[in-house]
Amino acid sequence: MTKLTIIGLGLIGGSLGLALKRAGLDDLEVTGFDREPDVEKRALKLGAIDRAGDRTMADAVQGAALVVIAAPILQVHKVLEEIAPALREGAVVTDTASTKAEVCRWADEALPEHISFVGGHPIAGKEIPGIDASDSALFEGRPWAITPSLRASEDAISVVENLVCLTGAHPVTIDAQEHDSYLGAVSHLPLIASIALFSLVSGSRAWPELATLAGPGFRDITRLASSSPDLSHDISLTNRENLVHWIERFVEELRHLRELIASEGRQEELIELFAKAQTARDAFIQAAPEKPGAEIEADTISAGERMISFLVGEYVLRRTKEIEQAMKEREER
Amino acid sequence: MTKLTIIGLGLIGGSLGLALKRAGLDDLEVTGFDREPDVEKRALKLGAIDRAGDRTMADAVQGAALVVIAAPILQVHKVLEEIAPALREGAVVTDTASTKAEVCRWADEALPEHISFVGGHPIAGKEIPGIDASDSALFEGRPWAITPSLRASEDAISVVENLVCLTGAHPVTIDAQEHDSYLGAVSHLPLIASIALFSLVSGSRAWPELATLAGPGFRDITRLASSSPDLSHDISLTNRENLVHWIERFVEELRHLRELIASEGRQEELIELFAKAQTARDAFIQAAPEKPGAEIEADTISAGERMISFLVGEYVLRRTKEIEQAMKEREER
Repeated sequence: MTKLTIIGLGLIGGSLGLALKRAGLDDLEVTGFDREPDVEKRALKLGAIDRAGDRTMADAVQGAALVVIAAPILQVHKVLEEIAPALREGAVVTDTASTKAEVCRWADEALPEHISFVGGHPIAGKEIPGIDASDSALFEGRPWAITPSLRASEDAISVVENLVCLTGAHPVTIDAQEHDSYLGAVSHLPLIASIALFSLVSGSRAWPELATLAGPGFRDITRLASSSPDLSHDISLTNRENLVHWIERFVEELRHLRELIASEGRQEELIELFAKAQTARDAFIQAAPEKPGAEIEADTISAGERMISFLVGEYVLRRTKEIEQAMKEREER
Repeated sequence: MTKLTIIGLGLIGGSLGLALKRAGLDDLEVTGFDREPDVEKRALKLGAIDRAGDRTMADAVQGAALVVIAAPILQVHKVLEEIAPALREGAVVTDTASTKAEVCRWADEALPEHISFVGGHPIAGKEIPGIDASDSALFEGRPWAITPSLRASEDAISVVENLVCLTGAHPVTIDAQEHDSYLGAVSHLPLIASIALFSLVSGSRAWPELATLAGPGFRDITRLASSSPDLSHDISLTNRENLVHWIERFVEELRHLRELIASEGRQEELIELFAKAQTARDAFIQAAPEKPGAEIEADTISAGERMISFLVGEYVLRRTKEIEQAMKEREER
């Protein structure tokens, strides 16, 4: 039986548990840990985890071959420190935080050498947080960034990739710094832009009238303003430089548009810009349909099942042997 | 039989026709006109209109009690000029353009004194344009701004309000200038922000990688970048001052956020801003659910039916009598 522990049973942790349950792996036991005992009970009831009730995080990760930290970004550091002494030799640790460079730095500092840390970031979610919003299909067809630390073994990377595939997501392996720069553009700037737009408009004295006239466009563009303030703050703090860079570039782009709109003589440029944006976005949407893949086919599941059992089991076995061998050699010298 | 003419059978004109068909008014005949004969045929086939095939716009509005101009903003001027000489005494004219001050000015210039112009703007839509995307439920639960010209009679305003109610939308009567300022904030700024964000990110050299990592947040916030370039341009041109004003304020707001994010000592302000935005947006969404009302109840339809027949018929009759009387008095003097 392979033990997998999920630390933090919010939307992401809960959905991961449900997705693994759906994959139906015989050899896998999922332990859940949450600071709130009620959340653990709820997760058990929903079937997102197989067992819970450990007194501490350290207890919960004992013997686990794979640990998934699904806690808020700023808490990941503390979780890493708390679980570090309790981790089994050669265990694989991953996380689900939205920023990766800082998290990978924390992992390098906190975890012992024999542990492989492979950062992870499922690019999926919804506005409603918490275990009750969990959804086994949350990750389906979505990218899941994987940022292995330099110390992570190939096998450990495969284990995490495999986990990702089991949820229906597709793994995208990427350098942590690059991840943060890219996500700064496609995720964190949109977040800040959405908040800025909503704050501006809702802060207007005419807001009661404005709200009456707001259509689906306003609703969509301000959706991210409903994000958890803690998440927004954690992102701002841990991806500060990239975010500031992208906000500045966004301001430049807005000013360029403002210039074209204000000047009578640059209408052609303006139309061209609008047409280019439309064409490019339509191409983007066509290339990446909203729900590609839909259901995972049965034989993919069984292949995945064999793979995770094989990889997690084999990997831990091999790593343990390697470490034993290394220690023996050291004693002999 | 009351004649209503829809000029322009795109998404809005077609959906209006379908909504009226669904309302099932016995006394109403809907004539459609489009520059493309194929579009007229399609609209007939879909049941969005009862008749078509007039050679000119002027022919199509002959005898109509109510004319709805559902053409692109910049074409409304020409349509008004073309139909003006052919309009029946006392006819009511409305439109569906996204900006209103300019359109109302054009109507005042182009239409004879005996015509009541009541500007209109259904705040509804979708990305896909054209008659084939028409949807009888497009306006359901949506606001529909009404901007009566100074010359418009109370009866004419009622006729247009009534038309709006029949589609399932709710009329919001507002001054045209105010409309453009408000829509600048909740519609046109979001449009430009969406285009700016998409242009910026898709213009990056890393776009292929960025596109792979883009999640639903990016998809939603850039949705408006898929809007018709012509529509975006018409809006920019006819609501220039308000749009420039709102872009400038948006840039200020972004800079404020950039300052808070960049500075170490202002985290509390930043969290407060995020929390305020979340609370306000959640309240906004709760106050205005996505699809309120759903289906119109049967007795509302019949009440509406009686009302529109009564109002359109009565109004035209009364206006015609008033005009005849006025002309007679003039002759007598």
